[in-house]
Order: sequence, then C-alpha cells, then structure tokens
Amino acid sequence: MTKRTSPHPTAHDVARLAGVSQAAVSRAFTTKASIALATRNKVFEAANALGYRPNLLARSLIKGKSGMVGVVISPLSPFCMAVLDAFSARLSDVGKHMLVFTNDGAKAVDKPVEALMKFRVDAIVLIGVRVTAKQARQCHEAQVPIIAFSRSPRNMKGVASITSDNVAGSEVIARHLIAQGYRTFGYMAGPEESKASQEREAGFTAHLTSLGLPAPERAVGQFHRAGAFEAARSLLSRTPRPEAIFCATDEMALALIEVARHELNLAIGREVGVAGFDGIEEAAWPTFDLTTYSTPVESVIGHLSPMLLDEQPELPLHTVITGKLEARGSTRRD
Amino acid sequence: MTKRTSPHPTAHDVARLAGVSQAAVSRAFTTKASIALATRNKVFEAANALGYRPNLLARSLIKGKSGMVGVVISPLSPFCMAVLDAFSARLSDVGKHMLVFTNDGAKAVDKPVEALMKFRVDAIVLIGVRVTAKQARQCHEAQVPIIAFSRSPRNMKGVASITSDNVAGSEVIARHLIAQGYRTFGYMAGPEESKASQEREAGFTAHLTSLGLPAPERAVGQFHRAGAFEAARSLLSRTPRPEAIFCATDEMALALIEVARHELNLAIGREVGVAGFDGIEEAAWPTFDLTTYSTPVESVIGHLSPMLLDEQPELPLHTVITGKLEARGSTRRD
Repeated sequence: MTKRTSPHPTAHDVARLAGVSQAAVSRAFTTKASIALATRNKVFEAANALGYRPNLLARSLIKGKSGMVGVVISPLSPFCMAVLDAFSARLSDVGKHMLVFTNDGAKAVDKPVEALMKFRVDAIVLIGVRVTAKQARQCHEAQVPIIAFSRSPRNMKGVASITSDNVAGSEVIARHLIAQGYRTFGYMAGPEESKASQEREAGFTAHLTSLGLPAPERAVGQFHRAGAFEAARSLLSRTPRPEAIFCATDEMALALIEVARHELNLAIGREVGVAGFDGIEEAAWPTFDLTTYSTPVESVIGHLSPMLLDEQPELPLHTVITGKLEARGSTRRD
Repeated sequence: MTKRTSPHPTAHDVARLAGVSQAAVSRAFTTKASIALATRNKVFEAANALGYRPNLLARSLIKGKSGMVGVVISPLSPFCMAVLDAFSARLSDVGKHMLVFTNDGAKAVDKPVEALMKFRVDAIVLIGVRVTAKQARQCHEAQVPIIAFSRSPRNMKGVASITSDNVAGSEVIARHLIAQGYRTFGYMAGPEESKASQEREAGFTAHLTSLGLPAPERAVGQFHRAGAFEAARSLLSRTPRPEAIFCATDEMALALIEVARHELNLAIGREVGVAGFDGIEEAAWPTFDLTTYSTPVESVIGHLSPMLLDEQPELPLHTVITGKLEARGSTRRD
C-alpha cells in the first residue's frame, strides 16, 4: 500500500504565499474579524491557489463546539427513518451536521454515547434507543445535552425527551373503534420494556374498561415485522377472534393486515378492524388504508430543532406531541 | 442565556492529579505505546476521577484522519435507506462513523462536498446524488476518495462508482416477461438524466427489439411516488394497454400496482404484469408479491467497505454488482 503524503496546505503556507502574517490568514477566514479588504483578498487568492481550506475540526477545538450533532439510531423503523430524514435536512439548513452511530435497539447506548463525547458533539439525539443513568450523568456533567426521541425513559437527569401523546392517542383510537361498532379487542404490544408500548396499552385498555368492556387480548410483536407476523397469527387465531386489533405501531399493523388478508382471507374492516399508531406514509396507501393516530414528523422536528440550535438555555424535561386520528377503511365495518 | 464554562478537563489536569508528565498521559491513552503498567493505572484513575476523555478531534488533526466517513444522501428512497442502514452498522463495527449531509437529489453536491472536506473526512460516499467534475478534482487533489453509489456519472477522475447491473438485469426482466406470455410492454423511467434509468431502459428495449417485438410505451415516474402515480395513470390508459410494465425501481412499481388495483380494478399479473428493479423489502410482501431484479444490500456493502477501510490502495473505477431475478405473482398470467 502506498503511504499517503499530507495533502493539506496549512495556514502557514497561505501566509507565506500571500506575504502576510499567519494571524492575518486566520482573521481573513473569520466572518466578523476586522481586516483590510486588500489583505483579505490577497489571502483568498493564495488560499485558492494552494487549495487551502480552514480546518473546521481545529476551529471546533478552539471554540469548544464542533457543529456536529451526534445521533444514535437503532435498526430503522419507518417512523424513526422519516424523522431522521427530516432532521438531517433541518440541520443542514443551519450549517450543522449529523454524526451518526447505529446501535442494536435491545442494548443501552453506553458505547456510542461515550464515543460521541470524544468527538465533542454539541448535543446527542437518541432515536429509538435507551441510555443508562450513568451515561446521562456523564453527559450532563460535560454539558452535552441529550434529547431522547420515542423510546426514552423519563425523568433522567440531563435527558430531555420527546414523545407522541401515547396515552391520549390510544384513548382516541379506542373511542373511534367503539364508535365504529367493534366490541371485543386485541392489542399488539412492542417489547415489554418499551415505555411507549406500555403507555399506548394503558391508554387503550383504560378507556375500554371504563366503559365496562373487557380488556384486550394481547400478543407481543416486538416493534418489528417478523415479530408482528407471529403476534398477528396468535391474535387472529383466538376463539372468539377479537373484532378489532390496535397495534402499537403502524409497521406492525401493516404486517397484521397482510396476515389477515393473505393467510386467513379476512376482509379488513368488515371481518376484522385494524388500527395503528404513528402515521407513517404506507398507512395512507390505498392498499392498506390504515386507521392510525398520526404524529406529524414536522411537529417532532419543530420541537427538536430549537433544543439543538442553542436557542433554549434550558431544555424542557419532557415534551409530548399531540397528534390526530386518521380514520380510514381498515376500521370501517360495512 | 447562561454562558457555558469549559466542561472538559485537559490532559494537563490529568497529569497534575496523577503526578506524571503530560506525555505520559498521552502514552497511556495510545494502545500500543510503551508505558509502565503502574503509570498507566495512575493515569486512568486520575482521568476517571476528573471525567477526562482523550479528544478524538485533536488526535485526528495530528494523524490527518478523522475516523469519519462523509455521506451525502438525497431525500431517501427505500433502497438507498437500506444501504445507509447496513453501511452505518458496518462502519460502527470498525470504529468509524458517518458524518451525514442531505442534499436535494436534483442539484449537484458541491456545497456538502466542500463542507465535508473541511471536516477532514477520510472518504466521501454519495448515495443517489451527483458530483460535479470540479469537486471531484478537488477531492482527488486532497486525496479524499469519493465513492458514488447508484446514480453516478462514470469515468470522472477521482470518483469510484458502484452500480447494480442495470443493462443485464433489465434484459433478465424482459426475458422473464416474454417467457410468461406477455407480448406488449411499458417502461416507467426515472428522471431523464439518470444514468441508471437510461441503462435499465436500454437493456429492456434492446432485448425486446432483438426479438422483433415493439419497443415499450414509456412514461417518466421520476423515481418518486407522486411521479409514479401520474406515470402509472398515463401508461395504464394507453390503447391498447401494455400487457406488462417494467418500472425502473420497485418503489415506482408499488405505486403502479396501487393505481392498477385500486383505481382501475385490474388483476395484477393476469390483466397487467408488473416488474420492478432493486429488491426492496416491500416487494416480497404478500400484498405486492412483486417480481424484481434484486441487488442484495449485503453485496453493495461488501464492495463498499474495503474501499473505505484503507484496505485497497487503488479504488476500482467502476464496480458492477450482479443481482438476481425474483419471479413472483405480479408477473403470473394465470
């Protein structure tokens, strides 16, 4: 293998070619610095000729800010993906960038968080992953804010969290299903340790039992497609079969629709009602026409951005985003 | 807003607390450096007490390598998304990380590439976006390799590219459709400037005309869902209607299936054959059961990784990945 020689001209090289001091080169590249126009032009010409670029890493060391936001994501669910996509675009707009780490959703994120701290990121966003109290404390001490989206544990020092309105949204779903005439229910849960899944189940069940209806049959779909296929087969084979099934995510609801339709030949809506949670794009496709409680991605980004752009001195501890019911064909009985 | 004090203890602080030199602190944190075990332990204890972490940004300045790979992505198609997901996991495995920029697919990527160079990334990966010759030359001069995945222009100095086997794969689709008994065809193209779409159309059309069959009817679906809905309506309303339609991506083929099924009430396969290209997950869902030419994501990552991990002194100019036909219900006539 050939050894690489350094391809980066330095500020010193630029200063020599321009016939100015190194300090002048530095000032030329600092937007608000006071410097004679002629000098700045000389520096820019020399920099151009040499292919010199001011080193943002070096600057971030001096300023203590890297302009990078660390993002830790678990293997991607469609909803988290949509948030990531929109978030990346928003950061690029303001000249910041994502340093991305992936993490197995099942494990806590100590290793990636430790690594991100070494890169001196300005903030850390966790999407669908959990952080330990120890790491949260270390970030807090180093004044690196952590914002947990979706699967966060609450009330952890140094961690701000953003979630959908899990309890109220699931009540809305329960009310809608009852209004459509369904009377017995199933619930497809995410992993048992998921706070989001717990809250959605609690909101759904509380509304049913408050009306004297039985609590839903349940199965665990694990927030992924393979798990949802198994859970769907389990729920749909109970005797009697629940008249309507609420799934903790749209992704799992789509899998349930496929099992019901293609393995059991059931008419969606008429023979079994199906509802999801999140409002992913596929839910609106004519093929699925899935009723869901939708949390707009723009709204998530709208809350996330000011937290990350130094516009807020204090992070709110916990932000709950209100979504809305999208009533579609998957919960129509006639 | 409260002003932040520096939260980062320095190597100097650690050296003082441990009662050793600053050079010893540096050696303690360098894996292969020679240092007495007792000294290393003293340094680690002091570092722990202070919450000190060696600064990776500073190290990367010295080594000229940041451990970051720059990735520029356009608004995300499902296939690019799957590649990004797998790629991120692979980089994490070897202790590297993605610095992600998003870019409108329609524009060239001069701005993000310029920014990535300033962050001293070790390499740049373009997913579904184009680079200008000027930027490619600048990266080449700075010895930052660029690898273009999917929509790359060919033969640009300093840019290695990876694509699916567009021509051969589309011939395979044509052969399969003819074997299934279809005799008249449509093609749904991506943007006219897309090399991938051009090649898929050329391979498909060449095989048909070589057998004396008419060239396909065509419409432009722009590689996105909204465009594909329009193109599907156009293709399916021609008189006579093409017996089978090949779409340049699976994503567009799914949209065509929805238009055919839900707007025109056509039986997929029997009344209109549909084939795609890429092999995204949704193609295998029972609901769509889409015939496609599939390029395994693992294979893309398998080619991408050695290029980025310094295992190859010279990048191959152009890598073509062979996929395989997935024959499914969307092209079954009976």
